[in-house]
Amino acid sequence: MATLGDIGLAAAINILTAFAFLLAFAVLRLQPYNDRVYFPKWYIKGVRSSPTNSGSFVNKFVNLDFRSYITFLQWIPAALKMPEPELIEHAGLDSAVYLRIYLLGLKIFAPICILAFAVLVPVNWTNNTLEIEASKESDLEFSTIDKISISNIPTGSNKFWTHLVMAYTFTFWTCYVLFKEYAIIAKLRLHFLASQQRRPDQFTVLVRNVPADPDESTYELVEHFFLVNHPEHFLTHQVVYDANKLSKLVGKKKAMKNWLDYYKLKYERNSSKRPTCKTGFFGLYGKKVDAIEYYTSEIDKLSKEEVKERDRLKKDPKSVMPTAFVSFKSRWGAAVCAQTQQSRNPTIWLTEWSPEPRDVYWRNLAIPFVNLKIRRLVIGVIFFFLTFFFIIPIAIVQSLANIEGIEEAVPFLKPLIEVPFIKSFIQGFLPGIVLKVFLIFLPMILMIMVKFEGFISISSLERRAATKYYIFLFVNVFLGSIIAGTAFQQIETFIHQSVSEFPKTIGIAIPQKATFFITYVMVDGWAGVAGEILRLKPLIVYHLKNIFLVKTEKDREEAMDPGSIEFNANEPKIQLYFLLGLVYAVVAPFLLPYIMVFFGLAYLVFRHQIINVYNQQYESAAAFWPNVHGRVIVAMVVSQIVLLGLLSTKEAANSTPFLIALPVLTIWFHSFCKNRYESAFRKFPLQEAKMKDTLERTREPNLDLKGYLLNAYVHPVFKEVEDYEAASVFNEEDYENVLVPTKRTSRKTTPAPSKYTGSSSSSLLDVHEEYHF
Amino acid sequence: MATLGDIGLAAAINILTAFAFLLAFAVLRLQPYNDRVYFPKWYIKGVRSSPTNSGSFVNKFVNLDFRSYITFLQWIPAALKMPEPELIEHAGLDSAVYLRIYLLGLKIFAPICILAFAVLVPVNWTNNTLEIEASKESDLEFSTIDKISISNIPTGSNKFWTHLVMAYTFTFWTCYVLFKEYAIIAKLRLHFLASQQRRPDQFTVLVRNVPADPDESTYELVEHFFLVNHPEHFLTHQVVYDANKLSKLVGKKKAMKNWLDYYKLKYERNSSKRPTCKTGFFGLYGKKVDAIEYYTSEIDKLSKEEVKERDRLKKDPKSVMPTAFVSFKSRWGAAVCAQTQQSRNPTIWLTEWSPEPRDVYWRNLAIPFVNLKIRRLVIGVIFFFLTFFFIIPIAIVQSLANIEGIEEAVPFLKPLIEVPFIKSFIQGFLPGIVLKVFLIFLPMILMIMVKFEGFISISSLERRAATKYYIFLFVNVFLGSIIAGTAFQQIETFIHQSVSEFPKTIGIAIPQKATFFITYVMVDGWAGVAGEILRLKPLIVYHLKNIFLVKTEKDREEAMDPGSIEFNANEPKIQLYFLLGLVYAVVAPFLLPYIMVFFGLAYLVFRHQIINVYNQQYESAAAFWPNVHGRVIVAMVVSQIVLLGLLSTKEAANSTPFLIALPVLTIWFHSFCKNRYESAFRKFPLQEAKMKDTLERTREPNLDLKGYLLNAYVHPVFKEVEDYEAASVFNEEDYENVLVPTKRTSRKTTPAPSKYTGSSSSSLLDVHEEYHF
Repeated sequence: MATLGDIGLAAAINILTAFAFLLAFAVLRLQPYNDRVYFPKWYIKGVRSSPTNSGSFVNKFVNLDFRSYITFLQWIPAALKMPEPELIEHAGLDSAVYLRIYLLGLKIFAPICILAFAVLVPVNWTNNTLEIEASKESDLEFSTIDKISISNIPTGSNKFWTHLVMAYTFTFWTCYVLFKEYAIIAKLRLHFLASQQRRPDQFTVLVRNVPADPDESTYELVEHFFLVNHPEHFLTHQVVYDANKLSKLVGKKKAMKNWLDYYKLKYERNSSKRPTCKTGFFGLYGKKVDAIEYYTSEIDKLSKEEVKERDRLKKDPKSVMPTAFVSFKSRWGAAVCAQTQQSRNPTIWLTEWSPEPRDVYWRNLAIPFVNLKIRRLVIGVIFFFLTFFFIIPIAIVQSLANIEGIEEAVPFLKPLIEVPFIKSFIQGFLPGIVLKVFLIFLPMILMIMVKFEGFISISSLERRAATKYYIFLFVNVFLGSIIAGTAFQQIETFIHQSVSEFPKTIGIAIPQKATFFITYVMVDGWAGVAGEILRLKPLIVYHLKNIFLVKTEKDREEAMDPGSIEFNANEPKIQLYFLLGLVYAVVAPFLLPYIMVFFGLAYLVFRHQIINVYNQQYESAAAFWPNVHGRVIVAMVVSQIVLLGLLSTKEAANSTPFLIALPVLTIWFHSFCKNRYESAFRKFPLQEAKMKDTLERTREPNLDLKGYLLNAYVHPVFKEVEDYEAASVFNEEDYENVLVPTKRTSRKTTPAPSKYTGSSSSSLLDVHEEYHF
Repeated sequence: MATLGDIGLAAAINILTAFAFLLAFAVLRLQPYNDRVYFPKWYIKGVRSSPTNSGSFVNKFVNLDFRSYITFLQWIPAALKMPEPELIEHAGLDSAVYLRIYLLGLKIFAPICILAFAVLVPVNWTNNTLEIEASKESDLEFSTIDKISISNIPTGSNKFWTHLVMAYTFTFWTCYVLFKEYAIIAKLRLHFLASQQRRPDQFTVLVRNVPADPDESTYELVEHFFLVNHPEHFLTHQVVYDANKLSKLVGKKKAMKNWLDYYKLKYERNSSKRPTCKTGFFGLYGKKVDAIEYYTSEIDKLSKEEVKERDRLKKDPKSVMPTAFVSFKSRWGAAVCAQTQQSRNPTIWLTEWSPEPRDVYWRNLAIPFVNLKIRRLVIGVIFFFLTFFFIIPIAIVQSLANIEGIEEAVPFLKPLIEVPFIKSFIQGFLPGIVLKVFLIFLPMILMIMVKFEGFISISSLERRAATKYYIFLFVNVFLGSIIAGTAFQQIETFIHQSVSEFPKTIGIAIPQKATFFITYVMVDGWAGVAGEILRLKPLIVYHLKNIFLVKTEKDREEAMDPGSIEFNANEPKIQLYFLLGLVYAVVAPFLLPYIMVFFGLAYLVFRHQIINVYNQQYESAAAFWPNVHGRVIVAMVVSQIVLLGLLSTKEAANSTPFLIALPVLTIWFHSFCKNRYESAFRKFPLQEAKMKDTLERTREPNLDLKGYLLNAYVHPVFKEVEDYEAASVFNEEDYENVLVPTKRTSRKTTPAPSKYTGSSSSSLLDVHEEYHF
C-alpha cells in the first residue's frame, strides 16, 4: 500500500502539472494569434473579430503589454463574474445546468467533508488496531491515511455506530440537496421553455414509421391521416428525403469552391501568372490545367449533378423516408399529438416531440421498428462484451503497475525500480495514466454504437452514450479497480466465496484502494481539468491548419474549433467522482478534500470555457438532468451496500438492519423525485402550451405561422442546393413549390392554402368541420 | 424421495377425490333447489327464474327425472358448445380471455410434452447412472421417475446437447405461441372496444389531485381549468364527495327495510297477531315493541338522517374530494386529456382514463400524491416481510411432513407412520395440503394491502394483487419448496456457497423435487379445480341462508352468490403451473402430463362456471393480458437459469455459452412484444376515437350527450338516497339540480346549459372562442 510520502509526491507532481498548464494558459491566452483558440465563442457571436485590424505587425502575434501578464490569473474572477441568467442567455440552458453539476458536487461534499473531518477522523484516529496488527504480522505496512480510515477501528467496536449515524446524515443531506436541485432545474427548464422565442419545434411533431400505402404517396398519406385525426389543429407537414448522396455532392462542391477561392486570391495577389493545378489525386499528379477555369467548370458540373440528384429525390418515391415533420396550428395541438397514440398498431404512426432543427440527426430518421429493436439487441450484446471483457487488459496492466508485479514480470529492472523516487512515481502515477489512455478513445466508440442504435436527435445520442459510458466506468474503473486488483492478491479466497461475501469483498477492498483513487482523482481530475483549459489539441491543430491549410478568411473561420461540453464524455466522469466521494465519505474521508478540489477547479475551468470557448450544437433545455440525478442515486445506493459489506466484516452485525433501510429509502426517494419532477423533462404540459398560444394570439393576431414553419425542417443540404439554384439558371418554379417552398414575402403574407393542403383533401376537411360542434 | 408407488397412491386419491367432486356436482346441479347455486348467471341475466312455478311440491326440490341422471356428464359438451363470440357477448371479454390462459397452457405444453416424451425420455432412460450410484452408496434410493429425468445422464456426457437443443426448441415454441396469442388478444380487445355500445367511460377522464384554491371551490376550479385548457372539448364534470358516512347510513336503512318486509310478510300470513320484536342488540333483549311500527319509524328516522348527511356533504366544502370526473364532447377529447400532462407540476391535475362506473373503487379517490407514495413504500416493506418471513412456517411444516422429520418430532407415532399405506399417504398428500391451507387466506390479505395502496378501480386492484400473489407464490411455493426443503437436508453446505453456486443449488434440487410438485399439481390442480365446480362453500352458505335468514324473495336473490373469476387469486396459481411446466420440461418431463391434465380440466370447469355461474363485477376488456404474458416470460427465464445451473453441475460446461443466449433472447422478445402490443392495453388510439366519434355523429346527430353523462359517475349511495327522496316529502328542487340532477325527460331533451356550465364561466368561454380559429 502506498504511504503518505507516495501520495505527497504524486500530489506534488499533479499540482505542479496543473499549475504549469494554468500558467501556460495564462500566457498563451493573452497572445493575439491564439485569440481564435481561446475565445471562439465570441467570434461566433460576432462580438470579437480578428485582431489583425490595428497595431503594429508584431502586436498582431505577440502581446507585448507586460502589465497584462502581472494579472495573469484574472480569468478566474472574470469566469465567475457573469451571473447565471446572463450565462443562460449567453450559452444556453444546457451549459448553465451542466455547470450546476459541479456546483452540486460542492454543495453535497462541502458539509460532508467538514462533518467527516470533525467527527469520523477523530473517532478513527483514537484507536490503535493497525499498530497492534502490525506488531503481530511484521510484513503488514500501514500509513497515516489508513490510521484515519475505518480500518483502524477494532472489530466489533461500538464506535461503528458513529459511522452508521454519519451514513444516515450523509444520505439525508445528499437527498436533500438533490431534491432542491431537481426543483431548481425543473423550474429553470420550464421558465426557459416558457420565455423562449417562438421556435419551430414548439409546433412540430416528428412522425415515424408512416405505413406504406399502395394508393397514396407518403406525402399525401401523412396529410390525410392528420387532417382526419387532428382536423382542427393540423397545419402543414414536410416529408424527409434520403439525402445522404446529395449531402456528399454538396460537401464535394464546397471543397471545390474553397480551392477556387484560394486560386482566385492567389491570382489577385499576383495577376501576372494564372495559377495552375494538377487534376489527379490531391493535386499531386495528372495533367496541369488552369486552376480557376478547371475549378469553375468542375463546380458547374457538380451543381448540375446536384440539381439532377435533387430532381431524382423528388421524383423517385423510394427516396421519401417513412418519416415526416408535422406542424400544428398551435402549441396545444402539437403537445397533444406528441403525447398521444395515433393508431391501433403502436408500431406505426409513432409521434414524438420534434427536436430542434439543428439537433436532428438526419441519418437515423428512416429506421423501421423491427430493425430498431434488433439494432438495440445487437448493440446491447456488443456493449456487454465491451464492458466485461475490456476489464481484462486493465486488470493485467494494473497488476503490473504494482511494484511487486513489475519486479516479477521484468526482474532485470528491479534495481532501477527500487530507487525510492522512481518507486513512488510508479506507484503514484502509473495506474492512473494507464486507465486514462484506455478511456480517451472510449466515448467515440460508444457514440458510434449509439448512432447505430437509431436515436434521432444529437442530444438523445449524447445522453444515451453518456449512460453507456457511465456503466462502463462503473464496471471497469470502479469495480474493476477494486475487485480485479484485489482478485490478483487474494484470488484463492475469492473464488470460493458465498453469496453474502460479495459485498464484504468489496467492502474490505474499498479502504485499501483509497490511495489508488486519490491518485486517480489527481491525474484525471486535477491535471485533466487544467489540461482542458489549455486546449492543447485545438491549439496545435489550429496553428497547423493556419500554416498549411488556411487559404481564405473562411478557412480560418473553419479552422477555429470551439468544441462543446461533450456531455457524453464528461458527465460520466463527473459521476465517477460523485461515486468515489459518496463511497469514501464514511470509509476513508481522507479522499474527500481531493474530490472537493476537483469540483472547485472544474467548476472554474468549465465556467470559463463555456463563456469563452464552447459553442453548443443544440439546446435541449437541460433534458439530461434526470440522468444526472439518477446516477447520483446509484452512487448513493452503491456506497450504502459497500458500507453494509464492510461493517458486516467488522462484526458490527447489530447495525446491519439499520443499514438495509438506507438503500430502500434512497430508492424510494428516487421514485418520489421521478414522479414529482421527471415529466417536466419529458412532456410538455397542456396548460403551458395553451398559455403561450393565447398570449401569442393576443400579441400577434395576424401571424403567418405556416410561412414561419414552411422551411424549418428541410434537410440542410436542400437549403444549400437551393441557395446555389437561386443564383443560377436552373431555377424551376415547381421545384421550389414542392421541395423547398419559396421564401418570397408575397407568398409569406398570403395565407392562401398551398396546392396540397387545399384541394386534394378539402372535401374530407369539410366533412369533419360539419361534425364538429 | 417418493417412489412411483407413492405417486400412484397420491394420484389415485386425487383422481378419486376429483371424480367424487364431479359426480357430486353432476347430481347436485340437477336438483331444482340448488338451481340458484349452479346457474346464478342465468338468473342475473333474467333468462331463468325460480323453479317454484310449476310441477309438484317434491319436484320443486328434488329432480325425480331419472333420465337426466344417466347423462350426468352432459355439462362438459354443453360447456364447450358455446362459441367464443357468443361467450364474449354472454360473459364479457375478461372472462373469455381468462379462459384463453388455460388454452395457452394447452397450446404451449401439448407439443412440448409430445416432444419431451419422444426425445428426452428415451435419451434419459438409456443410461444407468443412478444404478451405478445406487450400487456405490447403499442408502441412495431412486425410482422410475428419476430414471427418466435428467439425473440419469452421466456427468459430462455429450447427451446434454439433446437437452440444450430441446431447451431452445421449447423456448422458441413458447415465444411463438405467446406472440400469436398476444396478437389475437390485442385484436380481440380493440374489436371489443370498437364494437362496444356508447359507454360513459369512453367520454370521461378521472382527474385527481385537483389543487386547493382559496378563491374557488373544487367544482368551479375544475370547470375553469378545463374550459381554459380544453376549450373545444370540455363538456361537463362531476366532483366526488366523501360519502363513506352516507354509505353506512344507507346500508343500515337497507337492513331495516328488510326486517320491515319480513314482519309485513309475517303479518300478512297471520293477520290475527301484530308481530313484535325487541329493540336491543340483534333483537335479543330490550323493550318489546310492535315490529312494523318500530321499523317504519326507524326507517323514517334514518331517511331524515340520510338527507341531513347529504345536505351536509353538499354544503361543507371539506366533503368534496380533490377529485373529479370530467366528461368531454367526444371520445377524441377524452383520449387526448387522458394521455397528456395538464399542469407544470406533474403531481397535480393528474388525468387518467376513468374506469367504468361499476369498476370505480370510491374509497380511494381522495388520496393525495405524497400520501400515495408513502403508502406504496409502507406496503412494499410489509409485503417484503410477508413474502420472506412467511417462508419460515412453511419450511418447518414441510420438513416435518417428511417421514423422518415426523418420526423425529413425535417418536411415539413411529409405529403408526410406518404402516405402508399411511406412509405413502403422508408423503404424497400432506406437503401439498399444508401449503394449500396457507395459501387460501393469502389473496384476501393481499387485496387489503393493495386497497391501502390507493388504486382507484377494482380491476387495477385485482391486477396489482395478482402480481403480489405471484411474487409470493414464486418465492414461497417455488423457491421455498426447493431451497428450504433442500436447505434442511444440506444446510451445512449451503451457507458456505459461492455466487455461481446459487443457480447450481436450485438446479440440483429441481429434479429431486419433481415428485413433490407432482403431488402439488394433483392436490391443488386436479382436486382443487374439481372442488371449484362443486361450489361447496356457496352451496352450504346458500342453503344456510335460505333456512335461517331468507325472509323475502329479495333476500333469496341476495343469498345467491354467483362469485367471480377472482383474477387476483386464480391467475397467479395458473402461472405457477406455467412455471413448473417450463422448468420441468427439460429436467423431468414426467411432470408435464400432470400439468396438461390440470390445464384441460381447469379449462372445462372454468368454461362451465363462466357460462353458468360467475358474474363479473366489471369489464376491463382483457387489460390483464400484459401481466399474464410477462409472467410466462419470467417463468421461461427462470427455467433457463435453472437449466444453466443444473448443466454446469453436470460438467457440460461447453454448453453454457449457448444457454446464456437463451435468457437474453427471451428478455429481448419480451421487450419486443411490449413495444408491439402493450400500448393496445394501456392507451386509446386517437384514430380509433375519431372513427367512433364520426360514426356516432353521422348516426345520431341530435344525441344529448350531456344528458347521457349527467348521472354516470354519481356515487352509488346518492342514487339510493335520491330514490328514497323521490318518493318522500323531503323533495327539494335545488338539491336535485346540483347533486343528482333530475332524470326527467323534459330536461334531458332540452340541451339548455345547466346553471354551472352556463353562467359562471360563459365569459371565459367566449374569450377563448374568440382566439380559436
